[in-house]
Amino acid sequence: MSRVVVEVMLKPEILDPQGRAVEGALDRLGLVGVTSVRQGKRFEIELAGPLDASRRERLNELAETLLANPVIENFTVHVVEDA
Amino acid sequence: MSRVVVEVMLKPEILDPQGRAVEGALDRLGLVGVTSVRQGKRFEIELAGPLDASRRERLNELAETLLANPVIENFTVHVVEDA
Repeated sequence: MSRVVVEVMLKPEILDPQGRAVEGALDRLGLVGVTSVRQGKRFEIELAGPLDASRRERLNELAETLLANPVIENFTVHVVEDA
Repeated sequence: MSRVVVEVMLKPEILDPQGRAVEGALDRLGLVGVTSVRQGKRFEIELAGPLDASRRERLNELAETLLANPVIENFTVHVVEDA
């Protein structure tokens, strides 16, 4: 079994209203000195068997097209386990 | 500046309809052998100055009460940078 984590965050130049709301709430609730909060998505994907080159490539393509919107988001793909 | 990442995922026993939808889409779009997808949230928090014990404690409390719903979600707090 293989395990992959895909993290998707808004690009730094894109306004993140959810993150801003959390930033204000953390400050009001007594966490001092918060300068920035960005909120993103995290996908934990499990696959049967090892990740060969063609599956890795397809996974990267789908991270870019299905999981993230590359116009406004950056993404990273981490292979946590490959067996 | 300190940087902290909080990851929030639904507990394994809680149904994750977003994750299931992504699982179906990955399979239809040609990624073979996907057995599970779970979708969660990720917060990147930046704070001025170092994280002393009281700020760390407040951050953990707020992760549990504001960022996650501990009835249905698990969370992890990673200090990425502390200076």
